[in-house]
Amino acid sequence: MAISTKPPSGMRDFLPADVARRNHVVGIVRDVYERYGFVPLETPAIENLEILLGKYGEDEKLIYRILHRGEGLQRVLASGEPIDEAALSDLALRYDLTVPLARVVAQYGGDLPKFFKRYQIQPVWRADRPGRGRFREFYQCDVDITGTESPLADAEVCAASCEILERLGFRDFTFALNHRQLLRGLIRAAGIDTALEGSALTAVDKLDKIGPQGVHDELGQRGIGHDAAHRLLELIDRPADESNLQRLGALRDELQDDEAKQAVDRLAELLGLLEHTAVGRHVRVVPTLARGLGYYTGAIFELQVADLAGSIGGGGRYDELVGMFGKRRVPAVGLALGLERILLVMAERGMYPDLAIGPQVLVCWLDVDRSDVLAIAQRLRGQGLRVDVYPEPAKLGKQMQYADSPGVHAPWCAIVGKDELARGEIALKHMASGEQVAVAVDTAAAAISMRSPSSA
Amino acid sequence: MAISTKPPSGMRDFLPADVARRNHVVGIVRDVYERYGFVPLETPAIENLEILLGKYGEDEKLIYRILHRGEGLQRVLASGEPIDEAALSDLALRYDLTVPLARVVAQYGGDLPKFFKRYQIQPVWRADRPGRGRFREFYQCDVDITGTESPLADAEVCAASCEILERLGFRDFTFALNHRQLLRGLIRAAGIDTALEGSALTAVDKLDKIGPQGVHDELGQRGIGHDAAHRLLELIDRPADESNLQRLGALRDELQDDEAKQAVDRLAELLGLLEHTAVGRHVRVVPTLARGLGYYTGAIFELQVADLAGSIGGGGRYDELVGMFGKRRVPAVGLALGLERILLVMAERGMYPDLAIGPQVLVCWLDVDRSDVLAIAQRLRGQGLRVDVYPEPAKLGKQMQYADSPGVHAPWCAIVGKDELARGEIALKHMASGEQVAVAVDTAAAAISMRSPSSA
Repeated sequence: MAISTKPPSGMRDFLPADVARRNHVVGIVRDVYERYGFVPLETPAIENLEILLGKYGEDEKLIYRILHRGEGLQRVLASGEPIDEAALSDLALRYDLTVPLARVVAQYGGDLPKFFKRYQIQPVWRADRPGRGRFREFYQCDVDITGTESPLADAEVCAASCEILERLGFRDFTFALNHRQLLRGLIRAAGIDTALEGSALTAVDKLDKIGPQGVHDELGQRGIGHDAAHRLLELIDRPADESNLQRLGALRDELQDDEAKQAVDRLAELLGLLEHTAVGRHVRVVPTLARGLGYYTGAIFELQVADLAGSIGGGGRYDELVGMFGKRRVPAVGLALGLERILLVMAERGMYPDLAIGPQVLVCWLDVDRSDVLAIAQRLRGQGLRVDVYPEPAKLGKQMQYADSPGVHAPWCAIVGKDELARGEIALKHMASGEQVAVAVDTAAAAISMRSPSSA
Repeated sequence: MAISTKPPSGMRDFLPADVARRNHVVGIVRDVYERYGFVPLETPAIENLEILLGKYGEDEKLIYRILHRGEGLQRVLASGEPIDEAALSDLALRYDLTVPLARVVAQYGGDLPKFFKRYQIQPVWRADRPGRGRFREFYQCDVDITGTESPLADAEVCAASCEILERLGFRDFTFALNHRQLLRGLIRAAGIDTALEGSALTAVDKLDKIGPQGVHDELGQRGIGHDAAHRLLELIDRPADESNLQRLGALRDELQDDEAKQAVDRLAELLGLLEHTAVGRHVRVVPTLARGLGYYTGAIFELQVADLAGSIGGGGRYDELVGMFGKRRVPAVGLALGLERILLVMAERGMYPDLAIGPQVLVCWLDVDRSDVLAIAQRLRGQGLRVDVYPEPAKLGKQMQYADSPGVHAPWCAIVGKDELARGEIALKHMASGEQVAVAVDTAAAAISMRSPSSA
């Protein structure tokens, strides 16, 4: 029987170069979040099923459930009764990082800071149809501040995310900003019936994709009259040269209810805060931004790059969600970076720096004892170098060819023969140029960093 | 309905201080392995079930299987036929890191270096009975070199593991070393029937735990005659003051077959290599070391600390295992560090350094605009400091109390009031001493590192 050695459908093996790229991105994410005072949280891959059920609407069918084991399973199977899914499983794989945060806040609330600033970078599993950039196991990268409604918290979440993108080398991205009550206020101001609000939201969220006429048609199909649709489009389809504050001012004038006007005022305050951060260079008020909107209660944000449909991150304020397992209301603002999408765009644009991976030096040897070879490798490692040793006796040419082979790519060879050994030296060969110099073993790191500081 | 918000049985939430300790250890592991030329590999949490079946003997029942979903599951449940486990699942959670390595070597062999030096640090899942230091989700930390039978590979795997333990602060550990053919040769030399070899191994592996008399009794219970048991104990119960080379010499003299004598010679060669590494300070030849022995074909190693029953790491050479999914034989030597046990011992012994976690500075503010507060926080972050901002208006005393609260522990407060703002300064308060100085905003990092270089 030939067994397939591919990973399961929609899942991936990360070979060393892949891991290096992921670690590069995650390292920057961690560093920036920690400078903003966020602390790391990790939760188990497996959750009790009852924690996950009822949280994801019709996507609940995408949850991976764990089969019961042993006697428990045998009892169910042997009972002769009709069996349903619920009898076969009470554990499931993590589906997102928000429900685990809510569970952690309920469980450890008293031990956590009043304002819990946590980041969490872990895989989640969804039995979705695999596609380009869509996997069944993928990393999420969430940051949240719980316990406060202060706009300073919103600003910090936004600022950190933009700083991360800039540190990764992104320049031309947009930070789209909206407020749930602003969008709802505009729908009311257009005279659309409250019962049709959700339907109207779905249509206007597509403005970027299908244009004003497309949205108008879709509003019609959703039972919204011509006049109301026309009025709504007038409100949301803003001139491109309008500044963010002009836009907020113009929209405020059109709004009828105080709740929506206050939302505009809060958005203007947040905009003012964001001017002091990296967001200031990228922010755009986009009154049609909805992001599903289901659980958002305040500001809504989305990070967009021109050449990628969809976003590379987004979030907002959701004051009614994180308290779901407790008795207290837990206001929260958060943002998720789309790590897989960020990696995809960075690969397509060639945005990765030269990443240190694999040995800098391969020790090649001829006519000397293995113990001398190992001793020299240890002295090179003691200088902080990443060092591999050709493990078997072989011709020098073959050993140096190995240094150049795929997956090794050692930029330097340290050649050890009888003569070098007697003099306490190695012949250090720079593989790209072919240049070779004899250096004392203990000066190898210095010689290498002089020649190619970047390869350190 | 009150839902439990604990993690599932045998699984753990890692709160920020836990994550920091794990990251500290994993960071050192990665650093050392990379200096030895190892490269990182990551594989999916989920494997096709057929990859895992038949690999773990009776422990196979501990594998977590994933339940089929949707129509596929409904078809099985509605069929009316008797249902068995196999009809309900074809995916399962990773059980160890060795089988995934074997799969990766079979799948990508041509793209991998001839000598694939990989490390892998990922969680595995086992439905075992939870206990002290035994979890259902735990990290494994494996390092392997495939593609060579060279003792240099054995030595590098051993050297890296000991260097890691020393870097973590372990001093008094033992690196126990044995060879499968040596132990088998001793059993033969004692005159024990080949059919009872496995049974004898199980008994002698307990010498440390139950002493010579205990082993003698157990050998008897296993059907091994008094004389043979006595002879075997004479061979394996070595004087404590014997050096490793004396021990190998003495054992070699007792062995009858050439295979076992060659094993002693190879062990002596490996010992010679290890003298040039950190292992030299810790190595002890232990002829009873078996480690299950099932798949080992050569050297066997184990890392032991005095105050922990069991080991904190171990491995050996297993030349017939990694090729399991391919046609080629793939010789390999590897070692797994017991990350959870290392963390446990380090916690019990207080071996963790002061780990940088959470904010160094909490910005406290009074009678100033939020945007000024945020602007100052950004300037502090720009100096590389980890900075949090008290998000809401509150009395200064309350804000500083928060800096000292559990889970925050900010060693410094940066106080911003109208006067400070006007002068471009902050009042920097050292929380432990209560001392307070006014400094220019942009010199805060310098002032902090002068006062407490360790808290950076």
